[in-house]
Amino acid sequence: MKVLDVRSNTFESDFEVLLMRGKMDMKEVSFIVQGLLDEIIQNGLEAIKSHIARFDSWEARHFQDICITPQECLKAYNDLSPQLKSALHLAYDRIYAFHQKQKVKSWIDCEENGNILGSKAIPMERAGLYIPGGKAAYPSSLLMNAIPAIVAGVKEIVVCSPTPHNEPNPLLLAALHLCQITEVYKVGGASAIGLMAYGCKEVKKTDVITGPGNIFVACAKKLVFGDVNIDMVAGPSEIAIIADSQANPLYIAYDLLSQAEHDEMASSILISDNAKLIESVKKHIAEILPTMPRAKIAQASIENRAVMIHTRNIKESIEITNTIAPEHLEILTKSPFDVLPYIKHAGAIFLGEYSSEPIGDYLAGPNHTLPTGGSARFFSPLGVEHFIKRSSIISFSSNALAEVGEACALLAQCESLSAHAQAVLTRLENVKNKKG
Amino acid sequence: MKVLDVRSNTFESDFEVLLMRGKMDMKEVSFIVQGLLDEIIQNGLEAIKSHIARFDSWEARHFQDICITPQECLKAYNDLSPQLKSALHLAYDRIYAFHQKQKVKSWIDCEENGNILGSKAIPMERAGLYIPGGKAAYPSSLLMNAIPAIVAGVKEIVVCSPTPHNEPNPLLLAALHLCQITEVYKVGGASAIGLMAYGCKEVKKTDVITGPGNIFVACAKKLVFGDVNIDMVAGPSEIAIIADSQANPLYIAYDLLSQAEHDEMASSILISDNAKLIESVKKHIAEILPTMPRAKIAQASIENRAVMIHTRNIKESIEITNTIAPEHLEILTKSPFDVLPYIKHAGAIFLGEYSSEPIGDYLAGPNHTLPTGGSARFFSPLGVEHFIKRSSIISFSSNALAEVGEACALLAQCESLSAHAQAVLTRLENVKNKKG
Repeated sequence: MKVLDVRSNTFESDFEVLLMRGKMDMKEVSFIVQGLLDEIIQNGLEAIKSHIARFDSWEARHFQDICITPQECLKAYNDLSPQLKSALHLAYDRIYAFHQKQKVKSWIDCEENGNILGSKAIPMERAGLYIPGGKAAYPSSLLMNAIPAIVAGVKEIVVCSPTPHNEPNPLLLAALHLCQITEVYKVGGASAIGLMAYGCKEVKKTDVITGPGNIFVACAKKLVFGDVNIDMVAGPSEIAIIADSQANPLYIAYDLLSQAEHDEMASSILISDNAKLIESVKKHIAEILPTMPRAKIAQASIENRAVMIHTRNIKESIEITNTIAPEHLEILTKSPFDVLPYIKHAGAIFLGEYSSEPIGDYLAGPNHTLPTGGSARFFSPLGVEHFIKRSSIISFSSNALAEVGEACALLAQCESLSAHAQAVLTRLENVKNKKG
Repeated sequence: MKVLDVRSNTFESDFEVLLMRGKMDMKEVSFIVQGLLDEIIQNGLEAIKSHIARFDSWEARHFQDICITPQECLKAYNDLSPQLKSALHLAYDRIYAFHQKQKVKSWIDCEENGNILGSKAIPMERAGLYIPGGKAAYPSSLLMNAIPAIVAGVKEIVVCSPTPHNEPNPLLLAALHLCQITEVYKVGGASAIGLMAYGCKEVKKTDVITGPGNIFVACAKKLVFGDVNIDMVAGPSEIAIIADSQANPLYIAYDLLSQAEHDEMASSILISDNAKLIESVKKHIAEILPTMPRAKIAQASIENRAVMIHTRNIKESIEITNTIAPEHLEILTKSPFDVLPYIKHAGAIFLGEYSSEPIGDYLAGPNHTLPTGGSARFFSPLGVEHFIKRSSIISFSSNALAEVGEACALLAQCESLSAHAQAVLTRLENVKNKKG
């Protein structure tokens, strides 16, 4: 676990390394992934089956073999303990309620000259959600990806998730039932993205693909972008915590370790103007780490990717945070809302000691699919807007055209587009003749 | 100009060709473009200068040589004729007014248990606009890209536009003055996208890049996506017109030719249940085409890319339109607003005979940067939202945590994430102890 001091001579170069945390060198991966995508475009289901044998170690013979049925999902749901069932429902309801507030509406605006302008918001017809499997299956990711699509009004939602050794995760199945998703394929990685982007004889292509994944999934999403829309290109998870002297070091230790237990490549970052706090957090981490079931992963992440930055004051802590543009940000200061206005780049902002980041992972309400690696500078959390597109509406009356037609024709002529000008002038003439 | 009849045996295969109109085979281009981007990453300004010599046929020696100054822009603006000045201002004002209605607001929602959830909308810090030059320079594209960024509140807006032979377009300069853009580089194509995505010693990288361009620009935008955000991947322009018996064939001919004069690869599509109308439009096109200054381009586009589809009825016309998902759609039927609810995929929808598509290109108000090649299924017109990103806000009180904490810990345990569970449980315990 590195401790950087802003006063140090090497701070800038050390900090530069932290800023490059999200750099994924996709060039090598890209070649392999494009190959897998091309196989799906050319051979459809046969390619998918061969990828499953290669990467998930089981043999799919027929199309039915790769499908998860609603009956399986219902059974898994019925098998849940009452506690777990109600926890899942609670999460569903809270996430649903939050995303309801993101709804995009159609609107029109009428002018007195008869002109109508507006925007028609239309849900995507078919959305593809990628839910990672393998090392761990995350039913929470299903809720976080499915609910915005459901709220948006997407009619067809398809899910792909790998099932190594053909063993689906029961909790994921239960969550699929809860979300009423009936089209589910046991396909993972770049193959899944290819299947959803290009389709095959048995499966229709989708309009948008969302969801997290490893570098192969991220690379595949980038390669299919344009043929289909995607939510974002995301890498390993990360947290930054701004803390002052009165923050609870035990809470900070657990929150940093929460990030670290996800992935060896996860980044846990503490930014504080208080050296004592930093020391205390380090001690707690050292104590807790060996006791964790996922100690090995967390250890690797903490050792290689965790950074504690000792700043001069809170203002500097904020500046550094904005430069990092973290996926998750916790503000553990005396008055966290005083800090909020100055935060320019962060995927999700958790304010105060009770707003532990894991709450946001499961059931606070806001989405846990968030921009990583500094891309919070320009990407937003996954939301309803990712499942909706707009069309502009333009309706000119003859009066409205008479008001602006000549200016429009002049601009068209200046761009040497004569048919553009004539299209308007011909109509203008008719309007004048009718009036005259 | 092909005429397809839905009743024909070959309709499906002919229609399939039309649906593939937007397919850009980027694989070959991709290799070249990645090379140009890598040169910029490695050699910065030196690479830019060599690209200018190669592609734009002039020699840039110093950084200053590639900059367009505010003084040059002011001079160009002052040199405008009063008519043109007022036309540009009219366009600016109308586009500005429309985009004002797209503003994204921050919001919070307070629950009675002390819980606060919300969304903070933050303008991107630095946006890069690409404005094509070369064959034709389009000042209208500058307005359409700059105004949403201005409305969003982007502080730093940088423009790149190629100036072949080092000859900037005066109208573009004037529009730059009108938009008060002061950072402008005479750089085009993939180089411009590389400069804005990765920066160099003299120029800072941007957070989002928008704007139209040829296949090299589109490919570069796709390649840099993820390192920076982009608006969309777009190809040649296109229009579809749904018309019935009472539509004016001369208007239709001009609107189709407007599209055709843009680009040899532009697609002009008429969809009508009236054979007489189709014949009449064909005649008008044949008459007008030879008289156009850009006859050569329009001719190539009409010959190779224009399609007229004869349908059985309006319902079929609508279905076919939705399958095409055109960039621009004109509805020239008796009651265009009766058709609107059934349109599922179109970038911009123009209703009625006075709503000529060129009006939308210049000054109707809505953006003319629109999804092409069928991507209106999933991309939206360029808008204020492209220059804003959101952060989620999460603030839990101790009461709010007490209500959901145990459910959250249970879900975390089911995903084998023990530190997640402990982060919450430790806090819960403290809350209980304080209360007890």
